[in-house]
Amino acid sequence: MEQSIPWQQWIKEGQVSIPAILLKNYSLLGINETECMMLIHIHTYIEKGNSFPTPEELSNRMTLSASECFSVIQKLLKKGVLGIDQSSVKDVREESYSLLPLWNTLMNKLIKEQQHEKLTNTLQAQT
Amino acid sequence: MEQSIPWQQWIKEGQVSIPAILLKNYSLLGINETECMMLIHIHTYIEKGNSFPTPEELSNRMTLSASECFSVIQKLLKKGVLGIDQSSVKDVREESYSLLPLWNTLMNKLIKEQQHEKLTNTLQAQT
Amino acid sequence: MEQSIPWQQWIKEGQVSIPAILLKNYSLLGINETECMMLIHIHTYIEKGNSFPTPEELSNRMTLSASECFSVIQKLLKKGVLGIDQSSVKDVREESYSLLPLWNTLMNKLIKEQQHEKLTNTLQAQT
Amino acid sequence: MEQSIPWQQWIKEGQVSIPAILLKNYSLLGINETECMMLIHIHTYIEKGNSFPTPEELSNRMTLSASECFSVIQKLLKKGVLGIDQSSVKDVREESYSLLPLWNTLMNKLIKEQQHEKLTNTLQAQT
Repeated sequence: MEQSIPWQQWIKEGQVSIPAILLKNYSLLGINETECMMLIHIHTYIEKGNSFPTPEELSNRMTLSASECFSVIQKLLKKGVLGIDQSSVKDVREESYSLLPLWNTLMNKLIKEQQHEKLTNTLQAQT
Repeated sequence: MEQSIPWQQWIKEGQVSIPAILLKNYSLLGINETECMMLIHIHTYIEKGNSFPTPEELSNRMTLSASECFSVIQKLLKKGVLGIDQSSVKDVREESYSLLPLWNTLMNKLIKEQQHEKLTNTLQAQT
Repeated sequence: MEQSIPWQQWIKEGQVSIPAILLKNYSLLGINETECMMLIHIHTYIEKGNSFPTPEELSNRMTLSASECFSVIQKLLKKGVLGIDQSSVKDVREESYSLLPLWNTLMNKLIKEQQHEKLTNTLQAQT
Repeated sequence: MEQSIPWQQWIKEGQVSIPAILLKNYSLLGINETECMMLIHIHTYIEKGNSFPTPEELSNRMTLSASECFSVIQKLLKKGVLGIDQSSVKDVREESYSLLPLWNTLMNKLIKEQQHEKLTNTLQAQT
């Protein structure tokens, strides 16, 4: 098989799109840098069609061991920013990670901020 | 001024594109998760037109203090994956971060991998 | 000044993120390919900090003349998927394109589709 | 099954990353807006795991009929910016579109531009 030039491989691997609002706000949601990288890795795996990467697979791309990856995932599940969806296809139970809890949490944060701003504006207008 | 609905703000903030090849390989370059998040934040600031964010600005989006941010930046400069470009406009010296050293390092890694693979294939073909 | 290697310029120019939902649905909104490319170009200019590109600037990147660009923009404004925001900074009136009408239209389409689906499901459950 | 709120579907559909350099240069490569949208659609399908969308599938997202889609694809193959890769898995021949010819053409354009610029600079320095 023909070998691709390095920049061709670069392009082939593609890009991962991260909502800017996650990068701006994760620290306000009680998520640290290692946890945010874990969410980005899971997001990347889901985008590429693997919606339930194992701790080993995640560990291969991180500086954490598989058991440390497992522990970070547990924390994210407890914090309510990561979910696990279960479905059964022909009696085979399948699990997949869902980032919907993360997007919900971020969206709720935006809603509260806007309500707070509105209230502040109303109070200021009355004085 | 009219207030935007939260999902409109979400869209307005936009997306940040990260090369998948960075996410797959940073750990092999001796970069940990906190350092990778720092590179992603600097990348995001550059994309939005601020090419020399202060440690304070970076700290606002991270779980690190400004002095911890400064220390992570120093490490990235030493590791040769972050650079500082200097230019002078009308006698005013301006500095900006450059991620070119990071992209160069990643590209060189790809080149070496392919050379290694080629060599292995040649050796296997000879036996 | 040092000259950059072509792939470095490639990376420097960056990526433009387009919502997949636009690509899937524009034709259902009565937007054709030329009009969609115009929206993508305006989106790209806004992302790069130029929120009111002239027909000449747009024409430089397209196979259309400046007056044809102007005509496509007029159509998009009439169709209600492109808007113009006006603001004044120190008595200088400034105009900028807004893609919010496009995102609103797309979001409303999604809402209607879901309501329709819900209704269909309810009706089917009753029979 | 639970119904997702429209903005959740928006996020779920994800983003498509387009190299800015394509949007800036396609018209110089003799590609028009309809052809560029076709390339973007094929790119999107490949990213989502379908590397050989039929003219019918492409037609569903465009304002063109299936036979018009087929004709645009033929033109892109002739212009040398789209390729078809063939592979056989267990005696079953599989085909997939490749955008490598497009990226190669763009990269060669950048290389020529830089060589021209370099030559111009050298000539100017000599006078």
